[in-house]
Amino acid sequence: MATAQPTTDRLAEKHRSTLDQALDTIRTRAYWSPHPEHPKAYGADGSLDAAAGLTAYQSLLNGRFELDQPGTDGWTGGEVSPYGPELGVEYPHADLDVLLPAMRAGMGAWRDAGAETRALVCLEILARISARTHEFAHAVMHTSGQAFMMAFQAGGPHAQDRGLEAVAYAYAEQTRTPAGRAGWSKPQGKRDPLELSKEFTPVGRGVALVIGCNTFPTWNGYPGLFASLATGNPVLVKPHPRAVLPLALTVRVAREVLAETGFDPNLVALAVERPGEGIAKTLAVRPEVRIIDYTGSTAFGDWLEANARQAQVYTEKAGVNTVVVDSTDDYRGMLGNLAFSLSLYSGQMCTTPQNLLIPRDGIATDQGPKSYDEVVADLAAAVDGLLGDDARANGLLGALVNPDVKARLEAAADLGEVALASREVANPEFPDAVVRTPVIVKLDGSKPEAQDAYFSECFGPVSFAVAVDSTADALELLRRTVREKGAMTVGAYTTSEEVERAVEEVCLEEAAQLSLNLTGGVYVNQTAAFSDFHGSGGNPAANAALCDGAFVSNRFRVVEVRRQA
Amino acid sequence: MATAQPTTDRLAEKHRSTLDQALDTIRTRAYWSPHPEHPKAYGADGSLDAAAGLTAYQSLLNGRFELDQPGTDGWTGGEVSPYGPELGVEYPHADLDVLLPAMRAGMGAWRDAGAETRALVCLEILARISARTHEFAHAVMHTSGQAFMMAFQAGGPHAQDRGLEAVAYAYAEQTRTPAGRAGWSKPQGKRDPLELSKEFTPVGRGVALVIGCNTFPTWNGYPGLFASLATGNPVLVKPHPRAVLPLALTVRVAREVLAETGFDPNLVALAVERPGEGIAKTLAVRPEVRIIDYTGSTAFGDWLEANARQAQVYTEKAGVNTVVVDSTDDYRGMLGNLAFSLSLYSGQMCTTPQNLLIPRDGIATDQGPKSYDEVVADLAAAVDGLLGDDARANGLLGALVNPDVKARLEAAADLGEVALASREVANPEFPDAVVRTPVIVKLDGSKPEAQDAYFSECFGPVSFAVAVDSTADALELLRRTVREKGAMTVGAYTTSEEVERAVEEVCLEEAAQLSLNLTGGVYVNQTAAFSDFHGSGGNPAANAALCDGAFVSNRFRVVEVRRQA
Repeated sequence: MATAQPTTDRLAEKHRSTLDQALDTIRTRAYWSPHPEHPKAYGADGSLDAAAGLTAYQSLLNGRFELDQPGTDGWTGGEVSPYGPELGVEYPHADLDVLLPAMRAGMGAWRDAGAETRALVCLEILARISARTHEFAHAVMHTSGQAFMMAFQAGGPHAQDRGLEAVAYAYAEQTRTPAGRAGWSKPQGKRDPLELSKEFTPVGRGVALVIGCNTFPTWNGYPGLFASLATGNPVLVKPHPRAVLPLALTVRVAREVLAETGFDPNLVALAVERPGEGIAKTLAVRPEVRIIDYTGSTAFGDWLEANARQAQVYTEKAGVNTVVVDSTDDYRGMLGNLAFSLSLYSGQMCTTPQNLLIPRDGIATDQGPKSYDEVVADLAAAVDGLLGDDARANGLLGALVNPDVKARLEAAADLGEVALASREVANPEFPDAVVRTPVIVKLDGSKPEAQDAYFSECFGPVSFAVAVDSTADALELLRRTVREKGAMTVGAYTTSEEVERAVEEVCLEEAAQLSLNLTGGVYVNQTAAFSDFHGSGGNPAANAALCDGAFVSNRFRVVEVRRQA
Repeated sequence: MATAQPTTDRLAEKHRSTLDQALDTIRTRAYWSPHPEHPKAYGADGSLDAAAGLTAYQSLLNGRFELDQPGTDGWTGGEVSPYGPELGVEYPHADLDVLLPAMRAGMGAWRDAGAETRALVCLEILARISARTHEFAHAVMHTSGQAFMMAFQAGGPHAQDRGLEAVAYAYAEQTRTPAGRAGWSKPQGKRDPLELSKEFTPVGRGVALVIGCNTFPTWNGYPGLFASLATGNPVLVKPHPRAVLPLALTVRVAREVLAETGFDPNLVALAVERPGEGIAKTLAVRPEVRIIDYTGSTAFGDWLEANARQAQVYTEKAGVNTVVVDSTDDYRGMLGNLAFSLSLYSGQMCTTPQNLLIPRDGIATDQGPKSYDEVVADLAAAVDGLLGDDARANGLLGALVNPDVKARLEAAADLGEVALASREVANPEFPDAVVRTPVIVKLDGSKPEAQDAYFSECFGPVSFAVAVDSTADALELLRRTVREKGAMTVGAYTTSEEVERAVEEVCLEEAAQLSLNLTGGVYVNQTAAFSDFHGSGGNPAANAALCDGAFVSNRFRVVEVRRQA
């Protein structure tokens, strides 16, 4: 045991009940979170309040981000906030031939500590991150372009929830076999029984690589990071070059906690690339790397799955998310819910709906029949109303994360008839921020040239109101889209039990997560840790779901030692 | 629900307690089996006794094996018993373009039946197979070449145990989320809480392909077959062309039970190839095939892992199993235990030790120091003594499974100094059986030319007594062997706590299953379902272990449907 017993006891006293609650919640799937969503909940018990968080963030800017990792051979960095300012932070650049072997050195003690201590150390890391949620919020905001409130919640408590959920799954999975020695006695009739003593040890696979994304560096990064660490693996974090700071902060906290609890801090390390270096490809095929978690483009995800053969590869790639609009008994609620889903973070979520499939003959609603044109016009008006006030628009939209999104948005207007034009929103606090409202484009689903548009992912604030012949036609298109392009989310609105069963059947057969008739304050693009699965792992959008048994069970192996008793 | 409720109730009454006991045992890892090992235990309660089992087997010979599968376009078969006789059985040959779509037709009802009903139906299949254990024993004996008693136990109760174990893991994994709808309520301060109703459904991935092996058609086939079926997937069984009958019988029983319980019998089907047809490669890349279980050569296992990209691939390939001999306090017990391990089924188990690493300066024992030469000579004498009586030799050795094994055995004598020569054993009942005792060859571990021999798998009754410089040298060689060649099993004999810790450390670091100081009636090459893991899935010998969470958790996905409450 590398940890002194008092350290373990102290961690257990502090975190065991949280772990137990998480273990319970992943079974009941009820609502629960130990991480407050409200910014004002922070400031007591050593956590940073709003002002202290901002100061802490600002003190990171325009300087070197020290980590004291082995093999640092230079400094690199060049993040520019989607809100305008350069961050001016430089990070250590790693000589992988030094860093990777150093990361393995602490594996034995980390393994010997056992599943519970590993879980408790992970919970201490999460607790310290939680205490600095205000600081992380600014780091996430100025790398992802999310508005502050979203960066705070999705980048803070929601990301921490997803990390804790992964720890709970990892702990549950590793403790399926008894800790310590178990007796085994096989009767032999009149002869003495055969007796063995058996000991089962979960062992990590090797270095786990987390390849971060630009839009949700913590939310998408934490599940893999904590699942791998909790199952005994060292974790090397390779952030997206535009979103390093939130993960660099995470690595620093993890290293501090590991060192304080008696483990090797090099069990968690950071790999930042020089411009154009492309180290993800190099890292992904290193023999030391045995696990990879990746969020990003389909092309690179597919490359990883095909080429990183020495590793377990978990990918979240792109998909084409669809909402089937058949009928509704809450027309206003449906429009408001959809308008919010399309607007949140300028549609830059992997879960944002893209294709809205609407029968060309219109739909039945509680406000009477509505034609296709009416539905689209009313939705456009709902988005317009939601974003009419610039302050509220800024608070919902955030900034476009990179120039590619802006280019796609601008090109979208040429794809069909524009039902709602995108407009620029000025941001008084950050005049250089590129803030845009979503565009809604009308397409005729039966036209082959329209299919080129709606049958591929157009990541960003672009959605297509696709006119289809019927709901049956919509379901067939939904099925084909999920099967061939993948989907992180599917939505549907219907008052018909038959249609409900039919859309469920498509989602069950094609393994897509379905939200039905959302008209209130829950949106198709949001999932809650401990309860909702993010993706299914069963369609081309992702080969894994956050979070389930399959996400953790192959990150370690159980080695059995059996002895003559 | 496809099943009538009375059917489900009846199955639950019959099998639920067995399932519960299995679920309990995979947690405690204690000894348990519902399947009797003794041939005389069968005959009551509708099961076949020895005579009836033999008659049932004989009635299968020299005729067509009808299955009433869709797409049968001819008949094929050509099994010859390793004991001499041709089986003369012809099996349906399938048109895959007809059979594969037909197999998918019943997936929806099988999914809707739920995890418990699927588990109970699987247990009914296993119970009917169990009742015919005597019949299966002859089928396994005359395809694998195992002696009758081993074919009976390993091919019968032990294989059924492994199948039941897989069902238990599959059930446990699928029921980690609540069955039916679960409420979710998120507090919103003074406002009304957000409320959703959530429903979680485990869904199969698609057709699961089981590629059977020659030596243990049922034991190695059942885990994948039952894991896939219990998680909602149709299963296509592609037996080894020399070992069709045991799996054809299995498929027939499964189809009967499925039909009787109201499901589509085509959820389980058989694919037998014509001579030289090589359908495994064709099947493995069919888009309908989403899961593959394979036991066999490393070359084809590696090919599957690289090429069957549309499927989850579970492989058990080849390895080089090692025993480290450092010291012992029960020299006779060690020799007897090793002699049995080398002899059982003529060393044709994937778990049979191949390399015995013995310090060239000898070892300490309870009978005083023994030189390398003495240890090897005493082991040779122990094998000779064990197999001195032809009747006992036949009962332990069985027959060589195919001419390749015989060729390797004959070539082994030229690899070094023969410490124990192989001898022919006559089988009075089956004069054409090729029965051979094991050869033990002495090799100097420090000689590069010797390494060519001991550093690759020599499947069959061949072991190498490798002289090493020291136990430390042995451990280094063990590490390199497991890392580069893989191992299903590792054994070690030592009285030193320090050596014990060192060999454990190697096995933990390289993910190999270790048996320490076995001197009694448990052998390194045997694993017990519900308690021992077969392989680790963490070294090159296999990418999966029988049976753990990882073996089942990715055979299905959980689809969530959430509704505004």
